[in-house]
Amino acid sequence: MGQIITFGEVLLRISPRGNKKFIQSNIVEFYFGGTELNVGISISNFGGNVKHISAVSDDFIGETAMAYIRKFGVDTSSITLSKRPLGVYFLEVGAVIRPSMISYNRSHSAFSEIEPTKVNWENALQNGEWVHWTGITPALSKGAYETLREGLKLARQKGLAVSADPTYRSGLWKYEQDPKEALSELLNYSTIFIGGVNEINEVLGTDFGYENDDFIEASKQLMLAFPTIEKVFDKIRTSLNSSWHKIRARMWNGTDFRETEDLDITHVVDRIGTGDAFAAGLIYGLQKYDDYKAMEFASAACALKHTYEGDVNLATVKEVTNILGGNITGRLVR
Amino acid sequence: MGQIITFGEVLLRISPRGNKKFIQSNIVEFYFGGTELNVGISISNFGGNVKHISAVSDDFIGETAMAYIRKFGVDTSSITLSKRPLGVYFLEVGAVIRPSMISYNRSHSAFSEIEPTKVNWENALQNGEWVHWTGITPALSKGAYETLREGLKLARQKGLAVSADPTYRSGLWKYEQDPKEALSELLNYSTIFIGGVNEINEVLGTDFGYENDDFIEASKQLMLAFPTIEKVFDKIRTSLNSSWHKIRARMWNGTDFRETEDLDITHVVDRIGTGDAFAAGLIYGLQKYDDYKAMEFASAACALKHTYEGDVNLATVKEVTNILGGNITGRLVR
Amino acid sequence: MGQIITFGEVLLRISPRGNKKFIQSNIVEFYFGGTELNVGISISNFGGNVKHISAVSDDFIGETAMAYIRKFGVDTSSITLSKRPLGVYFLEVGAVIRPSMISYNRSHSAFSEIEPTKVNWENALQNGEWVHWTGITPALSKGAYETLREGLKLARQKGLAVSADPTYRSGLWKYEQDPKEALSELLNYSTIFIGGVNEINEVLGTDFGYENDDFIEASKQLMLAFPTIEKVFDKIRTSLNSSWHKIRARMWNGTDFRETEDLDITHVVDRIGTGDAFAAGLIYGLQKYDDYKAMEFASAACALKHTYEGDVNLATVKEVTNILGGNITGRLVR
Amino acid sequence: MGQIITFGEVLLRISPRGNKKFIQSNIVEFYFGGTELNVGISISNFGGNVKHISAVSDDFIGETAMAYIRKFGVDTSSITLSKRPLGVYFLEVGAVIRPSMISYNRSHSAFSEIEPTKVNWENALQNGEWVHWTGITPALSKGAYETLREGLKLARQKGLAVSADPTYRSGLWKYEQDPKEALSELLNYSTIFIGGVNEINEVLGTDFGYENDDFIEASKQLMLAFPTIEKVFDKIRTSLNSSWHKIRARMWNGTDFRETEDLDITHVVDRIGTGDAFAAGLIYGLQKYDDYKAMEFASAACALKHTYEGDVNLATVKEVTNILGGNITGRLVR
Amino acid sequence: MGQIITFGEVLLRISPRGNKKFIQSNIVEFYFGGTELNVGISISNFGGNVKHISAVSDDFIGETAMAYIRKFGVDTSSITLSKRPLGVYFLEVGAVIRPSMISYNRSHSAFSEIEPTKVNWENALQNGEWVHWTGITPALSKGAYETLREGLKLARQKGLAVSADPTYRSGLWKYEQDPKEALSELLNYSTIFIGGVNEINEVLGTDFGYENDDFIEASKQLMLAFPTIEKVFDKIRTSLNSSWHKIRARMWNGTDFRETEDLDITHVVDRIGTGDAFAAGLIYGLQKYDDYKAMEFASAACALKHTYEGDVNLATVKEVTNILGGNITGRLVR
Amino acid sequence: MGQIITFGEVLLRISPRGNKKFIQSNIVEFYFGGTELNVGISISNFGGNVKHISAVSDDFIGETAMAYIRKFGVDTSSITLSKRPLGVYFLEVGAVIRPSMISYNRSHSAFSEIEPTKVNWENALQNGEWVHWTGITPALSKGAYETLREGLKLARQKGLAVSADPTYRSGLWKYEQDPKEALSELLNYSTIFIGGVNEINEVLGTDFGYENDDFIEASKQLMLAFPTIEKVFDKIRTSLNSSWHKIRARMWNGTDFRETEDLDITHVVDRIGTGDAFAAGLIYGLQKYDDYKAMEFASAACALKHTYEGDVNLATVKEVTNILGGNITGRLVR
Repeated sequence: MGQIITFGEVLLRISPRGNKKFIQSNIVEFYFGGTELNVGISISNFGGNVKHISAVSDDFIGETAMAYIRKFGVDTSSITLSKRPLGVYFLEVGAVIRPSMISYNRSHSAFSEIEPTKVNWENALQNGEWVHWTGITPALSKGAYETLREGLKLARQKGLAVSADPTYRSGLWKYEQDPKEALSELLNYSTIFIGGVNEINEVLGTDFGYENDDFIEASKQLMLAFPTIEKVFDKIRTSLNSSWHKIRARMWNGTDFRETEDLDITHVVDRIGTGDAFAAGLIYGLQKYDDYKAMEFASAACALKHTYEGDVNLATVKEVTNILGGNITGRLVR
Repeated sequence: MGQIITFGEVLLRISPRGNKKFIQSNIVEFYFGGTELNVGISISNFGGNVKHISAVSDDFIGETAMAYIRKFGVDTSSITLSKRPLGVYFLEVGAVIRPSMISYNRSHSAFSEIEPTKVNWENALQNGEWVHWTGITPALSKGAYETLREGLKLARQKGLAVSADPTYRSGLWKYEQDPKEALSELLNYSTIFIGGVNEINEVLGTDFGYENDDFIEASKQLMLAFPTIEKVFDKIRTSLNSSWHKIRARMWNGTDFRETEDLDITHVVDRIGTGDAFAAGLIYGLQKYDDYKAMEFASAACALKHTYEGDVNLATVKEVTNILGGNITGRLVR
Repeated sequence: MGQIITFGEVLLRISPRGNKKFIQSNIVEFYFGGTELNVGISISNFGGNVKHISAVSDDFIGETAMAYIRKFGVDTSSITLSKRPLGVYFLEVGAVIRPSMISYNRSHSAFSEIEPTKVNWENALQNGEWVHWTGITPALSKGAYETLREGLKLARQKGLAVSADPTYRSGLWKYEQDPKEALSELLNYSTIFIGGVNEINEVLGTDFGYENDDFIEASKQLMLAFPTIEKVFDKIRTSLNSSWHKIRARMWNGTDFRETEDLDITHVVDRIGTGDAFAAGLIYGLQKYDDYKAMEFASAACALKHTYEGDVNLATVKEVTNILGGNITGRLVR
Repeated sequence: MGQIITFGEVLLRISPRGNKKFIQSNIVEFYFGGTELNVGISISNFGGNVKHISAVSDDFIGETAMAYIRKFGVDTSSITLSKRPLGVYFLEVGAVIRPSMISYNRSHSAFSEIEPTKVNWENALQNGEWVHWTGITPALSKGAYETLREGLKLARQKGLAVSADPTYRSGLWKYEQDPKEALSELLNYSTIFIGGVNEINEVLGTDFGYENDDFIEASKQLMLAFPTIEKVFDKIRTSLNSSWHKIRARMWNGTDFRETEDLDITHVVDRIGTGDAFAAGLIYGLQKYDDYKAMEFASAACALKHTYEGDVNLATVKEVTNILGGNITGRLVR
Repeated sequence: MGQIITFGEVLLRISPRGNKKFIQSNIVEFYFGGTELNVGISISNFGGNVKHISAVSDDFIGETAMAYIRKFGVDTSSITLSKRPLGVYFLEVGAVIRPSMISYNRSHSAFSEIEPTKVNWENALQNGEWVHWTGITPALSKGAYETLREGLKLARQKGLAVSADPTYRSGLWKYEQDPKEALSELLNYSTIFIGGVNEINEVLGTDFGYENDDFIEASKQLMLAFPTIEKVFDKIRTSLNSSWHKIRARMWNGTDFRETEDLDITHVVDRIGTGDAFAAGLIYGLQKYDDYKAMEFASAACALKHTYEGDVNLATVKEVTNILGGNITGRLVR
Repeated sequence: MGQIITFGEVLLRISPRGNKKFIQSNIVEFYFGGTELNVGISISNFGGNVKHISAVSDDFIGETAMAYIRKFGVDTSSITLSKRPLGVYFLEVGAVIRPSMISYNRSHSAFSEIEPTKVNWENALQNGEWVHWTGITPALSKGAYETLREGLKLARQKGLAVSADPTYRSGLWKYEQDPKEALSELLNYSTIFIGGVNEINEVLGTDFGYENDDFIEASKQLMLAFPTIEKVFDKIRTSLNSSWHKIRARMWNGTDFRETEDLDITHVVDRIGTGDAFAAGLIYGLQKYDDYKAMEFASAACALKHTYEGDVNLATVKEVTNILGGNITGRLVR
């Protein structure tokens, strides 16, 4: 495989241990995350060659973030340093009927001042085979949106695959920009759509329901509207409560609809980054397997992520395929 | 709302982390608790104005206890200092078929020497609207019983609401006093009874069963025997094992019987103080809502408490009502 | 009861906390374990008189291991010191569909160089009533196999009971020795067989299935082949995933087949050493109760072990029998 | 004493344990600080009646900050909530020849958007006797400067004492404002100057040296320039390295020059907030003692702060005066 | 050597980590201690055969205490179980000019109800060679005093050595008993006096100074008053502050006065139990070496104890004698 | 600079926190180390381009080691995987007069089976400018010695600089090989000698004293015996005790003798790897500065390393040169 390029904010995540709240203990743990970075690290853990592009703070926190990314073998050579601080998010992990809560401190972060002039896309995409983006990045700032757009434009010119996870979080779009317009612009450069009916409705302005037939029809309309998109993959989560989820996936690749079985996650360890694990599994899988197996791989990867603390999926290809092989009883590996 | 007054022992709780036993690790965590304090702190977390009356040790442990109470915004101005040490309890948290275990060191604690002369009830109840008591306090010592009795007497004279949680723990009554007699005396000043058939049988000397009809009949007889009591609320716990409980509640308010649905607590984090969370929810709820909604609020508060470490319910009103609104799938809050 | 003797390697177990991987945190916890030691410590926790025979490193790690064994009241006077390091195993605890993983560093450990000349069996068995062995020990080295064989031989001469847990782990047998031959030789000195159809198939070279009838027939053939064996006990685990198991047991004692009910372990805390907890329960139980009750005791002990961190069952007899009495709802013990 | 009012930013401090760097461990501890809050909490620990005025984030981090302030008995009723995040600072604690390092994330914090309209100074100063300010606040933003100026103006009108710690940190002044001008404006409302020759040179534009004579002359000129200033107190730190400091103080009160002996801090635990501990000691001391004893008290308080982790001096009056009594050998207190 | 017998209370020590106060963190560590137990464990660490006699609580805390004692190889067979809780002490570790602080919760502990009928001294002293006592035990309760007196009486009858560390802590003597009288009675059965001029003044009612000549004269008078006493050993601590001490010792054995050099403890880790380490070193040393070398050994043992957390000296004989050999530069041992 | 190549074992270091012993707490921390790796990581932290060559275990411990090395930006592409476990060392950190203690488990480690066929030196040295070796590697095994010899031979052919730190630890040489002979062979390919009189005496069989004149004469004789050696650098440690060291350095470069001032390390945090920090400082310095400034840089780097936990120097060039500039008072860096 050539290089997979991810572009997005790196966030410092700080959370109390277990299910504690900050008010209960002054000892906390940190990890680094950020939706696109999570995808990149997971692909690197699968053995992929990954470069992450971002901006971090020019201090010991930024250096620690860089070290964290290097630790997982991801190329940090296109990450620039900024005088602004690294974005932070605080997390309190819920349980059962108590939801997890997140509070962000990212609006004036190192990444928020990124601009097209700060990223040399020509260089960055030199050995690239695939670019992945999400809807978080264009929401953060005008500069982030424009920088991403430049990158995707070039990626398409060079014929790279472009996967889009256009997650729409309305609270994030604080600058003057119509989200639908921006996402549409970016989807014009994309080949793989990772999202469900909600995301399609958002960009098309439609009102599809959640049944499989709705999904298929929505996917078809999406492909009509954005002809570069070849395949649509949708991850479906069923939550009993904060601690017990089920995960399955479905797809429409222009000709076939397929669906996986539910994977039962009876004891969620950490729910953050599970969508990113799905995307990473898909990107890796589509380069190795057929569409359905890629989706199965992504679905198992997503389920596995629920068992790791932190934002990042630590599973290897062997660990994911083991589950595909039906090995879900957790038998001890010596 | 006027001020809610709680009166009772403050205990230092010490426990190993997770499901460890003391024999396994010399690193432990502490919280403070005590059934009436738990009620007070939870009401304060709901935004109520709460004063807790107690006696703590005149050392750095007592100061830490005071700081803990202040942290949650509860008024500590009526807490006195004692030369005796603060009561302590040690907890080993069980799991599945292993029960949690508690060992107390409280028989000669700071609170155990409390006497009527040490509490200025006139002052303490000045802005009071509600007094809450439990069956633990009169069991601890003659002085504690008599001090409580004085307070309740005055509370009734002033027309305050008085809620009673007459939990009967036979092992606690070590001084010369018939528990039934003492609890009856205190119920004569009470308006809300928080307890079930067991507690009613204990004070009436009856033998009612656990069906709803039994509960209604028992409540009626209780109200006959203690005419100040207006309402009876009963929390019902169904335990699969230490780690999996269900909670519901029922009530008889003199005219209506109502019952809530079970809330399924599939992964118990900490079971201590859940009854206190119910009482706190009820006291808060009865001042804001009708009887049934108050009970629903209390039941959801109780269920939520199972997801927090420590003795105290940390939930806000918004978090509790969110569950009443049917929001129990634990969707991440950003 | 006379003394129970266990013989086997003592291992240092090192694992990150909770479900973390080593790559995630540089803070880890350690316990000591080793299958036969686990059995010995559990029996000591039941009040039995236990001696463990082994070799540990002559350094502060070996001294810490000795202290750990003494802590549980097990006699360490027959443990010798070696210039080689103590064996280590690293554990990453899985969850749900992620299996736990173990990596060993034991091939040149203190115990690996044990030889018949290093253990004075005559002394060691002086007050002995029962010797327990497992299939791990003969797999480790020729010296370990021969030393064990000498001990069992003498134990039989003296009329001690000998329980065998001939767990077969093919990866362990690295020296020149046919496992089946060695295990058979050792079974010739054994009176209680703790194992199921797999283990019987392994030593007999048969191919029995897993139904109860298969188990009975297999047990009968085993007793024919090894006439000293009087009873066969089989623990059956049903795993939904890494975090949710069920445990039951069955037996054939030459005349009767019996089977226990499943115990549902909905939230596994630590799965390591649960088989050893079963063996310990059985050895203790067979000296106190009839065969069926011993098996029930062993089964409950095994289930309880899933709720303790570390390799060792910390349950007391009272805690186990409490479960036998049907008390599995985890009601708080004050 | 009447109420002491402090006004300034509340910061979340996050640091690895011991002398670790963030790159070494993902487990960190947090405290809250902020120079004026540190002063307020220390005075509250001395038994003073303190109100802190600030703005914190309207999330669980802000709530934790409020709880932290309440814990120490400081009045939080004038703290407002903001949609912006709480300011954060990251700290790596040095040792010996390695300096501690701090990185801030505060430029767009909750406090940074404070404005005169957000603080009701009339209310806030109602029971006030003393206001304390530092040079950090006017540096943070125009709004912070103007809000402080309003408060000081009113304080002077009401005849309150005003202590100034005009610490000048050039890196902080990022908005359009001449620091010297702003500090001078604020000194016009101040009665006690806590600072040394550096700070005087900064506001006067002079170039005094560090000898006692220089200090006296500088103080005289300061009082000429700012006639409301009655006394000048200067804390002098002699650092062997990060881990070994000596502290003494000197003063000029218009008539007398006095100087204390060095206190030898051979093993620094935490150097942060030691200047604030000096200021707090002084403010408390000047209300209880004569000038020289107040300075001695402040100097001992400052020295003691070096022995507490976190930003805040936890010493009581008894603990400080114990040192004044010559009791510096650290004899165990039972 | 025969068995050394120690008799005294076992205390649970709970303290925050490092130099934190309880108000700062809810994570704390525990150890077990008690002056006589500390002596016993240290002697056991030197290879001695030690039995500790006490009473502990009949709960999981008492079981943990027993396990702790067994861990160090000390015989627990004469420890009885009590319905009362184990004594507890809370410790905040000071630094530099901040003293450490201790708060006790022991007045109604398991040990406080000990009485002569609860200890079978005949059995307990069966293999005894030496009994050690301190002034803490007779201060705790009448029963403790009388039980100790019985034991010492029998020890003298059997000709055992008896070492006395008559530490006088006036705050402890709360029952009706003249301390001087009680200590004198117990000294009548003692052969080795571990204490200095203060302790001698206390029992003789004299007023000696601290110079060596005073010490010699005081010792002579002590031996006149208590003719069984053969030797007096005095440990002298010079404290710069809480974190920096120097230790030396002096002796009078009836004929010779000797004195050791100061050992410089530049970075105190834990000061608790250092006197007990001296006593243990002495008891061990007097059985192996001449008086002066025994004192040197004790002095080095005492100095080493300052480098271990917890109440107990963990040093081996090899580690102590290494220092006697002049090896105090702390060169790494591989 | 071209690439610096280090070759040697990677060890997992496990140690209790602070000054605890393993017997005191089951919570421990780990880092990775190994003398040559330590040098490599430090140079990478200075901004150098470094490749480390080694063999690690093919399990999650080996993967964690690789991640650790990558985290610091060191090239791991020439590290091979082995079926053997990673070498481990256990460390108990002493204090004051208590020495730190180390116990190794490395004799059958992944690295111990390295052989010339496993390292492609031609590839590895492709961009090389400097190779660093120490006396630990040839001591570990015949294969390690021979592999190193091949590498050095090639390095000399290619004209790379070769620095030698021929630390001699007699306990390590367990295979059939004369240490003096092996070290001499390797010195024949070396250009920089990092060591003192002891190391020179060891390889020359001489008996020089420790004075500067001895050092100069010894260096001259060394250069006669090994004509490729151009410069000799000697780090001198003066230890008051485990917690207080002084560091200085001296050199002979064939023409000049120079010596640095002592750097006073009054509070040692971690003494491990300080020699490696000196070597790393020298290798970096000699490529940037003249000989004397390189030695000063190395000396300051060595002193700084005493303030970081773990085996590795985390200091940057800026932090080291700051000290060279005389900035040793540890003033806070904001």
